[in-house]
Amino acid sequence: MSPAPGPRPGGRSARIQQAVHASTRKLLDERDRADITVPMIAADAGVTPSTIYRRWGDITEVFADVALERLRPDATPRETGSVRGDLVAWAQDYLEEMSSPVGRASLRDVVMSGDTVRSGDGTNQFKCATFCRTQIEAILGRGEPVGSPVQGVVEHVIDHVVAPIIYRILFDLDPLAADRVEVLVDQALDAAVRV
Amino acid sequence: MSPAPGPRPGGRSARIQQAVHASTRKLLDERDRADITVPMIAADAGVTPSTIYRRWGDITEVFADVALERLRPDATPRETGSVRGDLVAWAQDYLEEMSSPVGRASLRDVVMSGDTVRSGDGTNQFKCATFCRTQIEAILGRGEPVGSPVQGVVEHVIDHVVAPIIYRILFDLDPLAADRVEVLVDQALDAAVRV
Repeated sequence: MSPAPGPRPGGRSARIQQAVHASTRKLLDERDRADITVPMIAADAGVTPSTIYRRWGDITEVFADVALERLRPDATPRETGSVRGDLVAWAQDYLEEMSSPVGRASLRDVVMSGDTVRSGDGTNQFKCATFCRTQIEAILGRGEPVGSPVQGVVEHVIDHVVAPIIYRILFDLDPLAADRVEVLVDQALDAAVRV
Repeated sequence: MSPAPGPRPGGRSARIQQAVHASTRKLLDERDRADITVPMIAADAGVTPSTIYRRWGDITEVFADVALERLRPDATPRETGSVRGDLVAWAQDYLEEMSSPVGRASLRDVVMSGDTVRSGDGTNQFKCATFCRTQIEAILGRGEPVGSPVQGVVEHVIDHVVAPIIYRILFDLDPLAADRVEVLVDQALDAAVRV
């Protein structure tokens, strides 16, 4: 289950969310993920366990909700003077963040969370994918056109740049080498022009 | 924890593994993953819960072990007469298998399993990546050379074909469109020649 529709900022619901997030982050810093329970989070946050169960369903969803907050971009992509340069800079930052221990754990928490709702856009996994799309769209909207309709270019960047970054973090021994990012961005842009 | 080093076929250890796998698969067919417990699997398999805890650590590792068995290729890749054709055929089969409900759940079970051992090749995630590499290497070893050293070509196929297939299954609303596979294989082979 995903958390209930967006809490009003400053409302009781928002305060509970903030407290539960803060307690979960604190406990994750202090101990193993497997040792953390809903009652522990509830005690630290000053809410009842049933408040957490009612709102999140289970602890996997609490972890995923906190992870999603960590994966949410907190700035617009850097400007370098060209679309290619902006994409390279963004992808290098993204690789660095996602391959950090916190980034990697957050990605795994998001993958673990429930996703029976495959028809809508409500899954945590899709929200995570949407963060990337929004950043890439912002970059493509800035400068000179780089090929077919923007949406097509975005999908090429997803396939050729975002996907190998994430795949290697989740499945491989080592993350993508940082010096591969430029080549992959060029291949995504080439692919977009050729379509 | 990963299962202990390979059980002798036919030995007690192998029989336990088979029984626990069979019971887990049966329970996964019957009910929600979240409702399955180690004691339930133990009862069905005719072993004690402590046997399972000792060997697998926890239920996440049991699920991952079963998932890995499902993801393990059970045949050599089809032969079509060309390396390009073989790669396209393999990737299309791979996309179809991984995007099925069982394939997708297995991928998620593998991602969820413990991976504190990042220095070795012991993680379930890396075993899963190795299945792909071995299949791709088998194809590349068959026919005409297609560029730089085989290992380099394998990595291009991972980045441009395997990664987008897996990324879209795990994070996106829809799996990769089947008709994108050919284009991605061509781009991987192009990238390999250009290096």
